[in-house]
Amino acid sequence: MLARMMTTRKLETCFSPALFESECYTDSIVVIIDVLRASSAICTAFANGATSIIPVTGIEEAKDYKSKGYLVAAERDGFVLDFADFGNSPFNFTMEKVEGKTIVYSTTNGTGLINLTLSSYMTVIGSFLNLGALTAWLIKQERDVLLLCAGWKKRFNIEDTVCAGAIADILMNSGQFTTICDSTYAAMDLWSLARKDLSGYIDKAAQRTRLRDKKLDDCIEFCLTPDFTDKIPVMKNGVLINTDH
Amino acid sequence: MLARMMTTRKLETCFSPALFESECYTDSIVVIIDVLRASSAICTAFANGATSIIPVTGIEEAKDYKSKGYLVAAERDGFVLDFADFGNSPFNFTMEKVEGKTIVYSTTNGTGLINLTLSSYMTVIGSFLNLGALTAWLIKQERDVLLLCAGWKKRFNIEDTVCAGAIADILMNSGQFTTICDSTYAAMDLWSLARKDLSGYIDKAAQRTRLRDKKLDDCIEFCLTPDFTDKIPVMKNGVLINTDH
Repeated sequence: MLARMMTTRKLETCFSPALFESECYTDSIVVIIDVLRASSAICTAFANGATSIIPVTGIEEAKDYKSKGYLVAAERDGFVLDFADFGNSPFNFTMEKVEGKTIVYSTTNGTGLINLTLSSYMTVIGSFLNLGALTAWLIKQERDVLLLCAGWKKRFNIEDTVCAGAIADILMNSGQFTTICDSTYAAMDLWSLARKDLSGYIDKAAQRTRLRDKKLDDCIEFCLTPDFTDKIPVMKNGVLINTDH
Repeated sequence: MLARMMTTRKLETCFSPALFESECYTDSIVVIIDVLRASSAICTAFANGATSIIPVTGIEEAKDYKSKGYLVAAERDGFVLDFADFGNSPFNFTMEKVEGKTIVYSTTNGTGLINLTLSSYMTVIGSFLNLGALTAWLIKQERDVLLLCAGWKKRFNIEDTVCAGAIADILMNSGQFTTICDSTYAAMDLWSLARKDLSGYIDKAAQRTRLRDKKLDDCIEFCLTPDFTDKIPVMKNGVLINTDH
Protein backbone atom coordinates (compact mmCIF):
# COMPACT_ATOMS: atom_id res chain seq x y z
CA MET A 1 0.00 0.00 0.00
CA LEU A 2 1.44 3.29 -1.13
CA ALA A 3 -1.40 5.47 0.15
CA ARG A 4 0.01 8.47 1.90
CA MET A 5 -0.67 8.55 5.63
CA MET A 6 -2.66 11.60 6.50
CA THR A 7 -2.64 13.14 9.90
CA THR A 8 -6.12 13.85 11.15
CA ARG A 9 -6.11 17.21 12.78
CA LYS A 10 -8.51 18.78 15.26
CA LEU A 11 -10.81 21.59 14.24
CA GLU A 12 -12.54 23.74 16.85
CA THR A 13 -14.54 26.97 16.86
CA CYS A 14 -14.84 29.58 19.60
CA PHE A 15 -17.74 32.05 19.44
CA SER A 16 -16.33 34.81 21.64
CA PRO A 17 -12.99 36.06 22.98
CA ALA A 18 -14.55 35.64 26.45
CA LEU A 19 -14.69 31.87 25.82
CA PHE A 20 -11.15 31.59 24.43
CA GLU A 21 -8.85 29.40 26.52
CA SER A 22 -5.42 30.38 25.23
CA GLU A 23 -3.62 27.58 27.09
CA CYS A 24 -5.44 24.98 24.95
CA TYR A 25 -4.11 26.32 21.63
CA THR A 26 -0.36 26.73 22.02
CA ASP A 27 0.22 24.19 19.22
CA SER A 28 -2.67 25.34 17.02
CA ILE A 29 -3.16 27.81 14.23
CA VAL A 30 -5.74 30.36 15.41
CA VAL A 31 -7.83 32.03 12.68
CA ILE A 32 -9.28 35.36 13.82
CA ILE A 33 -12.59 36.22 12.17
CA ASP A 34 -14.06 39.72 12.46
CA VAL A 35 -16.06 40.01 9.23
CA LEU A 36 -17.61 43.43 9.97
CA ARG A 37 -15.06 44.90 9.59
CA ALA A 38 -11.51 44.38 10.93
CA SER A 39 -10.68 41.04 9.26
CA SER A 40 -12.09 42.24 5.95
CA ALA A 41 -10.19 45.53 6.13
CA ILE A 42 -6.89 43.77 6.89
CA CYS A 43 -7.33 41.34 3.98
CA THR A 44 -8.17 44.26 1.68
CA ALA A 45 -5.09 46.19 2.77
CA PHE A 46 -2.83 43.28 1.80
CA ALA A 47 -4.77 42.74 -1.44
CA ASN A 48 -3.97 46.36 -2.29
CA GLY A 49 -0.28 45.97 -1.62
CA ALA A 50 0.28 46.91 2.03
CA THR A 51 3.62 45.50 3.23
CA SER A 52 2.67 44.98 6.85
CA ILE A 53 0.18 45.96 9.54
CA ILE A 54 1.11 46.67 13.14
CA PRO A 55 -1.89 45.99 15.39
CA VAL A 56 -1.97 48.16 18.50
CA THR A 57 -4.53 48.12 21.29
CA GLY A 58 -4.39 51.60 22.82
CA ILE A 59 -5.18 54.95 21.26
CA GLU A 60 -2.06 56.59 22.75
CA GLU A 61 0.14 53.97 21.10
CA ALA A 62 -1.55 54.63 17.76
CA LYS A 63 -1.02 58.40 18.19
CA ASP A 64 2.62 57.80 18.98
CA TYR A 65 3.12 55.90 15.72
CA LYS A 66 1.29 58.68 13.86
CA SER A 67 3.76 61.25 15.20
CA LYS A 68 6.58 59.08 13.83
CA GLY A 69 5.09 59.30 10.33
CA TYR A 70 3.24 55.99 10.07
CA LEU A 71 -0.09 55.62 8.28
CA VAL A 72 -2.60 55.03 11.08
CA ALA A 73 -6.00 53.34 10.92
CA ALA A 74 -7.91 53.79 14.16
CA GLU A 75 -11.57 53.56 15.05
CA ARG A 76 -13.78 53.16 18.08
CA ASP A 77 -17.34 51.88 17.70
CA GLY A 78 -17.06 52.28 13.95
CA PHE A 79 -15.96 55.91 13.83
CA VAL A 80 -12.55 57.16 12.63
CA LEU A 81 -10.52 58.78 15.41
CA ASP A 82 -9.63 62.39 14.60
CA PHE A 83 -5.85 61.97 14.47
CA ALA A 84 -6.01 58.87 12.24
CA ASP A 85 -5.59 58.61 8.46
CA PHE A 86 -8.58 56.28 8.21
CA GLY A 87 -10.96 53.99 10.09
CA ASN A 88 -11.73 50.35 9.46
CA SER A 89 -13.89 50.37 6.37
CA PRO A 90 -12.14 48.14 3.81
CA PHE A 91 -12.86 50.89 1.25
CA ASN A 92 -10.31 53.13 3.02
CA PHE A 93 -7.45 50.76 2.28
CA THR A 94 -7.06 51.65 -1.40
CA MET A 95 -3.99 50.86 -3.47
CA GLU A 96 -3.11 54.57 -3.72
CA LYS A 97 -2.99 54.86 0.02
CA VAL A 98 -1.50 51.56 1.20
CA GLU A 99 0.70 50.06 -1.54
CA GLY A 100 4.18 49.39 -0.18
CA LYS A 101 3.27 50.86 3.20
CA THR A 102 3.26 49.73 6.80
CA ILE A 103 -0.05 50.54 8.52
CA VAL A 104 -0.64 50.89 12.25
CA TYR A 105 -4.11 49.60 13.09
CA SER A 106 -6.22 50.00 16.20
CA THR A 107 -9.88 48.88 16.33
CA THR A 108 -12.51 48.39 19.02
CA ASN A 109 -12.41 44.63 18.85
CA GLY A 110 -9.90 43.19 16.46
CA THR A 111 -6.48 44.27 17.63
CA GLY A 112 -7.03 43.37 21.30
CA LEU A 113 -8.03 39.96 20.06
CA ILE A 114 -4.82 39.49 18.07
CA ASN A 115 -2.81 40.13 21.23
CA LEU A 116 -4.94 37.61 23.12
CA THR A 117 -3.69 34.85 20.82
CA LEU A 118 0.04 35.57 21.15
CA SER A 119 0.69 32.21 22.83
CA SER A 120 -0.79 30.20 19.95
CA TYR A 121 1.47 28.51 17.40
CA MET A 122 0.36 31.01 14.78
CA THR A 123 -2.34 33.65 14.32
CA VAL A 124 -3.85 34.31 10.89
CA ILE A 125 -6.67 36.56 9.70
CA GLY A 126 -9.72 35.01 8.08
CA SER A 127 -12.68 36.54 6.23
CA PHE A 128 -14.91 35.73 3.29
CA LEU A 129 -12.49 37.79 1.18
CA ASN A 130 -9.68 35.22 1.51
CA LEU A 131 -11.81 32.10 2.08
CA GLY A 132 -10.43 29.91 -0.71
CA ALA A 133 -6.75 30.77 -0.27
CA LEU A 134 -6.92 30.55 3.52
CA THR A 135 -8.58 27.13 3.60
CA ALA A 136 -6.23 25.69 0.94
CA TRP A 137 -3.29 26.93 3.03
CA LEU A 138 -4.73 25.61 6.33
CA ILE A 139 -5.21 22.17 4.77
CA LYS A 140 -1.52 22.09 3.82
CA GLN A 141 -0.26 22.91 7.33
CA GLU A 142 0.29 20.07 9.80
CA ARG A 143 -1.58 21.77 12.63
CA ASP A 144 -4.82 21.76 14.59
CA VAL A 145 -6.99 24.78 13.82
CA LEU A 146 -9.12 27.01 16.04
CA LEU A 147 -11.58 29.38 14.39
CA LEU A 148 -11.90 32.34 16.79
CA CYS A 149 -14.86 34.64 16.20
CA ALA A 150 -14.38 38.22 17.37
CA GLY A 151 -18.05 38.64 18.23
CA TRP A 152 -19.18 42.02 19.50
CA LYS A 153 -18.39 43.21 23.00
CA LYS A 154 -17.80 39.59 24.03
CA ARG A 155 -21.10 38.41 22.56
CA PHE A 156 -21.80 35.79 19.90
CA ASN A 157 -22.47 37.24 16.46
CA ILE A 158 -23.99 35.83 13.30
CA GLU A 159 -21.59 37.12 10.63
CA ASP A 160 -18.40 35.78 12.21
CA THR A 161 -20.10 32.47 13.01
CA VAL A 162 -21.31 32.00 9.44
CA CYS A 163 -17.81 32.76 8.12
CA ALA A 164 -16.36 30.22 10.58
CA GLY A 165 -18.93 27.77 9.24
CA ALA A 166 -17.83 28.40 5.65
CA ILE A 167 -14.19 27.78 6.59
CA ALA A 168 -15.07 24.70 8.67
CA ASP A 169 -17.16 23.27 5.84
CA ILE A 170 -14.18 23.34 3.46
CA LEU A 171 -11.73 22.01 6.05
CA MET A 172 -14.01 19.13 7.07
CA ASN A 173 -14.65 18.23 3.43
CA SER A 174 -10.89 17.93 2.87
CA GLY A 175 -10.91 14.79 5.02
CA GLN A 176 -7.89 16.09 6.92
CA PHE A 177 -9.76 17.33 9.96
CA THR A 178 -11.95 15.85 12.63
CA THR A 179 -14.11 17.64 15.19
CA ILE A 180 -16.16 16.89 18.28
CA CYS A 181 -16.80 20.57 18.86
CA ASP A 182 -20.46 21.59 19.12
CA SER A 183 -19.63 25.16 18.05
CA THR A 184 -18.10 23.89 14.81
CA TYR A 185 -21.19 21.78 14.01
CA ALA A 186 -23.47 24.73 14.78
CA ALA A 187 -21.39 27.11 12.64
CA MET A 188 -21.48 24.70 9.69
CA ASP A 189 -25.25 24.26 10.06
CA LEU A 190 -25.80 28.03 10.13
CA TRP A 191 -23.56 28.37 7.06
CA SER A 192 -25.68 25.71 5.30
CA LEU A 193 -28.73 27.96 5.89
CA ALA A 194 -26.93 31.19 4.99
CA ARG A 195 -24.95 30.24 1.88
CA LYS A 196 -27.87 30.40 -0.55
CA ASP A 197 -28.44 34.10 0.22
CA LEU A 198 -25.61 35.30 2.42
CA SER A 199 -26.51 38.97 2.29
CA GLY A 200 -30.15 38.25 3.09
CA TYR A 201 -29.14 36.02 5.97
CA ILE A 202 -26.70 38.52 7.47
CA ASP A 203 -29.47 41.11 7.23
CA LYS A 204 -30.75 40.05 10.64
CA ALA A 205 -27.36 40.42 12.29
CA ALA A 206 -27.23 43.05 15.02
CA GLN A 207 -23.92 44.44 13.75
CA ARG A 208 -25.45 45.11 10.34
CA THR A 209 -28.17 47.14 12.07
CA ARG A 210 -25.57 48.97 14.15
CA LEU A 211 -23.53 49.86 11.04
CA ARG A 212 -26.66 50.90 9.17
CA ASP A 213 -27.72 53.19 12.02
CA LYS A 214 -24.31 54.88 11.81
CA LYS A 215 -24.42 54.97 8.00
CA LEU A 216 -21.33 52.73 7.94
CA ASP A 217 -22.99 49.84 6.13
CA ASP A 218 -21.84 50.61 2.58
CA CYS A 219 -19.08 47.98 2.73
CA ILE A 220 -21.16 45.04 3.98
CA GLU A 221 -21.82 43.51 0.57
CA PHE A 222 -18.11 43.73 -0.19
CA CYS A 223 -17.18 42.05 3.13
CA LEU A 224 -19.35 39.08 2.16
CA THR A 225 -17.56 38.54 -1.20
CA PRO A 226 -15.72 35.21 -1.29
CA ASP A 227 -12.23 34.99 -2.75
CA PHE A 228 -11.53 38.66 -3.43
CA THR A 229 -7.86 38.00 -2.60
CA ASP A 230 -5.39 35.17 -2.09
CA LYS A 231 -3.55 37.03 0.67
CA ILE A 232 -3.28 35.39 4.08
CA PRO A 233 -2.31 37.85 6.79
CA VAL A 234 -0.23 36.10 9.44
CA MET A 235 1.23 37.39 12.69
CA LYS A 236 5.06 37.35 12.88
CA ASN A 237 6.86 39.05 15.78
CA GLY A 238 3.96 41.35 16.57
CA VAL A 239 3.39 42.39 12.96
CA LEU A 240 0.92 41.12 10.37
CA ILE A 241 2.49 40.22 7.04
CA ASN A 242 1.26 38.29 4.01
CA THR A 243 2.36 34.68 4.32
CA ASP A 244 4.14 33.17 1.36
CA HIS A 245 2.21 30.25 0.02
CA MET B 1 -60.44 51.19 19.09
CA LEU B 2 -60.71 48.59 21.82
CA ALA B 3 -57.64 46.59 20.82
CA ARG B 4 -55.68 45.73 23.90
CA MET B 5 -52.26 47.35 24.11
CA MET B 6 -49.57 44.73 24.27
CA THR B 7 -46.21 45.34 25.75
CA THR B 8 -43.44 44.16 23.48
CA ARG B 9 -40.83 42.51 25.58
CA LYS B 10 -37.20 41.78 24.87
CA LEU B 11 -35.99 38.23 24.29
CA GLU B 12 -32.30 37.36 24.48
CA THR B 13 -30.22 34.19 24.56
CA CYS B 14 -26.86 33.57 26.19
CA PHE B 15 -24.83 30.53 25.10
CA SER B 16 -22.57 30.18 28.13
CA PRO B 17 -22.41 31.21 31.79
CA ALA B 18 -19.05 32.82 30.88
CA LEU B 19 -20.93 35.26 28.62
CA PHE B 20 -23.67 36.06 31.15
CA GLU B 21 -23.76 39.69 32.24
CA SER B 22 -25.88 39.56 35.39
CA GLU B 23 -26.17 43.34 35.66
CA CYS B 24 -28.17 43.46 32.41
CA TYR B 25 -30.94 41.17 33.64
CA THR B 26 -32.04 42.49 37.04
CA ASP B 27 -35.56 43.11 35.66
CA SER B 28 -35.71 39.96 33.51
CA ILE B 29 -36.87 36.41 33.95
CA VAL B 30 -33.85 34.16 33.39
CA VAL B 31 -34.58 30.65 32.09
CA ILE B 32 -31.77 28.20 32.88
CA ILE B 33 -31.42 25.41 30.33
CA ASP B 34 -29.25 22.38 31.04
CA VAL B 35 -30.95 19.67 28.99
CA LEU B 36 -28.40 16.90 29.67
CA ARG B 37 -29.23 16.55 32.49
CA ALA B 38 -29.83 19.01 35.38
CA SER B 39 -32.83 20.94 33.98
CA SER B 40 -34.50 17.73 32.89
CA ALA B 41 -33.89 16.07 36.26
CA ILE B 42 -35.33 19.04 38.17
CA CYS B 43 -38.45 19.14 35.99
CA THR B 44 -38.89 15.38 36.48
CA ALA B 45 -38.55 15.69 40.25
CA PHE B 46 -41.42 18.21 40.38
CA ALA B 47 -43.47 16.13 37.94
CA ASN B 48 -43.14 13.25 40.39
CA GLY B 49 -44.28 15.30 43.35
CA ALA B 50 -41.14 16.77 44.93
CA THR B 51 -42.09 19.72 47.15
CA SER B 52 -38.90 21.72 46.71
CA ILE B 53 -35.27 21.50 45.65
CA ILE B 54 -32.43 23.25 47.41
CA PRO B 55 -29.57 23.85 44.96
CA VAL B 56 -26.14 23.86 46.58
CA THR B 57 -22.78 24.43 44.94
CA GLY B 58 -20.28 22.68 47.18
CA ILE B 59 -19.97 19.02 48.08
CA GLU B 60 -19.43 19.79 51.78
CA GLU B 61 -22.70 21.69 51.91
CA ALA B 62 -24.48 18.75 50.29
CA LYS B 63 -22.92 16.34 52.83
CA ASP B 64 -24.03 18.60 55.65
CA TYR B 65 -27.65 18.46 54.48
CA LYS B 66 -27.37 14.67 54.15
CA SER B 67 -26.32 14.39 57.79
CA LYS B 68 -29.46 16.35 58.71
CA GLY B 69 -31.63 13.75 57.01
CA TYR B 70 -32.34 15.38 53.65
CA LEU B 71 -32.54 13.45 50.39
CA VAL B 72 -29.40 14.44 48.49
CA ALA B 73 -28.74 14.34 44.74
CA ALA B 74 -25.10 15.03 43.98
CA GLU B 75 -22.93 14.30 40.97
CA ARG B 76 -19.66 15.39 39.46
CA ASP B 77 -18.96 14.81 35.77
CA GLY B 78 -21.99 12.58 35.56
CA PHE B 79 -21.19 10.21 38.41
CA VAL B 80 -23.13 9.92 41.68
CA LEU B 81 -21.08 10.96 44.71
CA ASP B 82 -20.77 8.15 47.25
CA PHE B 83 -22.61 9.83 50.13
CA ALA B 84 -25.56 10.88 47.94
CA ASP B 85 -28.95 9.19 47.50
CA PHE B 86 -28.79 9.68 43.75
CA GLY B 87 -27.12 11.51 40.86
CA ASN B 88 -28.69 13.62 38.13
CA SER B 89 -30.33 11.13 35.84
CA PRO B 90 -34.02 12.09 35.65
CA PHE B 91 -34.78 8.37 36.09
CA ASN B 92 -33.54 8.62 39.69
CA PHE B 93 -36.25 11.08 40.66
CA THR B 94 -39.13 8.59 40.85
CA MET B 95 -42.41 9.22 42.60
CA GLU B 96 -41.60 6.61 45.27
CA LYS B 97 -38.44 8.47 46.17
CA VAL B 98 -39.33 12.15 45.83
CA GLU B 99 -43.08 12.63 46.37
CA GLY B 100 -43.67 15.18 49.12
CA LYS B 101 -39.95 15.55 49.73
CA THR B 102 -37.39 18.34 49.73
CA ILE B 103 -34.28 17.40 47.73
CA VAL B 104 -30.84 18.93 48.08
CA TYR B 105 -29.17 19.05 44.68
CA SER B 106 -25.54 19.64 43.68
CA THR B 107 -24.35 19.18 40.09
CA THR B 108 -21.20 19.96 38.10
CA ASN B 109 -22.82 22.76 36.15
CA GLY B 110 -26.38 23.50 37.02
CA THR B 111 -26.45 24.60 40.62
CA GLY B 112 -23.55 27.05 40.33
CA LEU B 113 -25.43 28.59 37.44
CA ILE B 114 -28.59 29.07 39.50
CA ASN B 115 -26.59 31.04 42.06
CA LEU B 116 -25.09 33.17 39.27
CA THR B 117 -28.56 34.47 38.43
CA LEU B 118 -29.57 35.51 41.96
CA SER B 119 -29.74 39.19 40.97
CA SER B 120 -32.24 38.59 38.17
CA TYR B 121 -35.95 39.36 38.70
CA MET B 122 -36.68 35.65 38.68
CA THR B 123 -34.93 32.37 37.77
CA VAL B 124 -36.88 29.47 36.29
CA ILE B 125 -35.83 26.06 34.95
CA GLY B 126 -36.47 25.20 31.31
CA SER B 127 -36.17 21.95 29.38
CA PHE B 128 -37.95 20.13 26.60
CA LEU B 129 -39.94 18.36 29.33
CA ASN B 130 -41.82 21.53 30.33
CA LEU B 131 -41.63 23.39 26.99
CA GLY B 132 -45.34 24.07 26.47
CA ALA B 133 -46.19 25.03 30.05
CA LEU B 134 -43.07 27.18 30.44
CA THR B 135 -43.61 29.17 27.25
CA ALA B 136 -47.33 29.71 27.97
CA TRP B 137 -46.38 31.00 31.41
CA LEU B 138 -43.55 33.23 30.08
CA ILE B 139 -45.93 34.80 27.57
CA LYS B 140 -48.29 35.75 30.41
CA GLN B 141 -45.61 37.49 32.50
CA GLU B 142 -44.88 41.17 31.88
CA ARG B 143 -41.14 40.70 31.74
CA ASP B 144 -38.17 40.55 29.40
CA VAL B 145 -36.74 37.03 29.09
CA LEU B 146 -33.18 35.75 28.91
CA LEU B 147 -32.59 32.14 27.87
CA LEU B 148 -29.38 31.09 29.61
CA CYS B 149 -27.74 27.93 28.29
CA ALA B 150 -25.62 26.04 30.81
CA GLY B 151 -23.22 24.80 28.15
CA TRP B 152 -20.42 22.52 29.26
CA LYS B 153 -17.41 23.79 31.17
CA LYS B 154 -18.15 27.31 29.91
CA ARG B 155 -18.45 26.15 26.29
CA PHE B 156 -21.34 26.42 23.85
CA ASN B 157 -23.33 23.24 23.47
CA ILE B 158 -25.84 22.02 20.91
CA GLU B 159 -28.56 20.51 23.11
CA ASP B 160 -29.11 23.58 25.30
CA THR B 161 -29.00 25.86 22.26
CA VAL B 162 -31.60 23.85 20.38
CA CYS B 163 -33.87 23.87 23.45
CA ALA B 164 -33.41 27.66 23.70
CA GLY B 165 -34.36 27.83 20.02
CA ALA B 166 -37.54 25.83 20.65
CA ILE B 167 -38.54 28.18 23.49
CA ALA B 168 -37.62 31.29 21.46
CA ASP B 169 -39.61 30.05 18.48
CA ILE B 170 -42.81 29.84 20.56
CA LEU B 171 -42.20 33.17 22.32
CA MET B 172 -41.48 35.03 19.08
CA ASN B 173 -44.56 33.50 17.42
CA SER B 174 -46.71 34.85 20.26
CA GLY B 175 -46.12 38.36 18.95
CA GLN B 176 -45.34 39.54 22.48
CA PHE B 177 -41.58 39.53 22.12
CA THR B 178 -39.01 41.26 20.00
CA THR B 179 -35.31 40.48 19.62
CA ILE B 180 -32.19 41.94 18.07
CA CYS B 181 -30.03 39.22 19.62
CA ASP B 182 -27.88 37.21 17.19
CA SER B 183 -27.78 34.27 19.60
CA THR B 184 -31.58 34.06 19.60
CA TYR B 185 -31.72 34.06 15.80
CA ALA B 186 -29.02 31.39 15.63
CA ALA B 187 -30.76 29.22 18.25
CA MET B 188 -34.06 29.42 16.35
CA ASP B 189 -32.35 28.53 13.09
CA LEU B 190 -30.64 25.51 14.66
CA TRP B 191 -33.99 24.45 16.15
CA SER B 192 -35.53 24.71 12.66
CA LEU B 193 -32.92 22.19 11.47
CA ALA B 194 -33.21 19.95 14.53
CA ARG B 195 -36.95 19.74 15.11
CA LYS B 196 -37.70 17.21 12.37
CA ASP B 197 -35.43 14.63 14.02
CA LEU B 198 -34.34 15.97 17.39
CA SER B 199 -32.70 12.78 18.58
CA GLY B 200 -30.76 12.38 15.32
CA TYR B 201 -29.65 16.00 15.46
CA ILE B 202 -28.51 15.84 19.08
CA ASP B 203 -26.55 12.71 18.16
CA LYS B 204 -23.59 14.87 17.13
CA ALA B 205 -23.53 16.76 20.42
CA ALA B 206 -20.34 16.30 22.42
CA GLN B 207 -22.27 15.81 25.67
CA ARG B 208 -24.18 12.91 24.17
CA THR B 209 -20.85 11.27 23.32
CA ARG B 210 -19.53 11.98 26.81
CA LEU B 211 -22.61 10.42 28.44
CA ARG B 212 -22.46 7.43 26.08
CA ASP B 213 -18.80 6.84 26.92
CA LYS B 214 -19.76 6.74 30.61
CA LYS B 215 -22.83 4.59 29.89
CA LEU B 216 -25.00 7.41 31.25
CA ASP B 217 -26.91 7.98 28.01
CA ASP B 218 -30.01 5.91 28.76
CA CYS B 219 -32.05 9.01 29.65
CA ILE B 220 -31.25 11.13 26.57
CA GLU B 221 -34.36 10.20 24.60
CA PHE B 222 -36.46 11.02 27.66
CA CYS B 223 -34.76 14.43 28.10
CA LEU B 224 -35.77 15.32 24.53
CA THR B 225 -39.48 14.59 25.14
CA PRO B 226 -41.60 17.73 24.86
CA ASP B 227 -44.34 18.44 27.39
CA PHE B 228 -43.83 15.56 29.80
CA THR B 229 -44.91 17.91 32.60
CA ASP B 230 -46.61 21.25 33.22
CA LYS B 231 -44.40 22.02 36.23
CA ILE B 232 -42.33 25.19 36.16
CA PRO B 233 -39.56 25.17 38.76
CA VAL B 234 -38.93 28.70 39.99
CA MET B 235 -36.37 30.02 42.44
CA LYS B 236 -37.82 31.61 45.61
CA ASN B 237 -35.57 32.58 48.54
CA GLY B 238 -32.82 30.18 47.51
CA VAL B 239 -35.14 27.23 46.97
CA LEU B 240 -36.73 25.86 43.78
CA ILE B 241 -40.48 25.34 44.02
CA ASN B 242 -43.18 24.70 41.45
CA THR B 243 -44.75 28.00 40.47
CA ASP B 244 -48.52 28.19 40.62
CA HIS B 245 -49.93 28.93 37.21
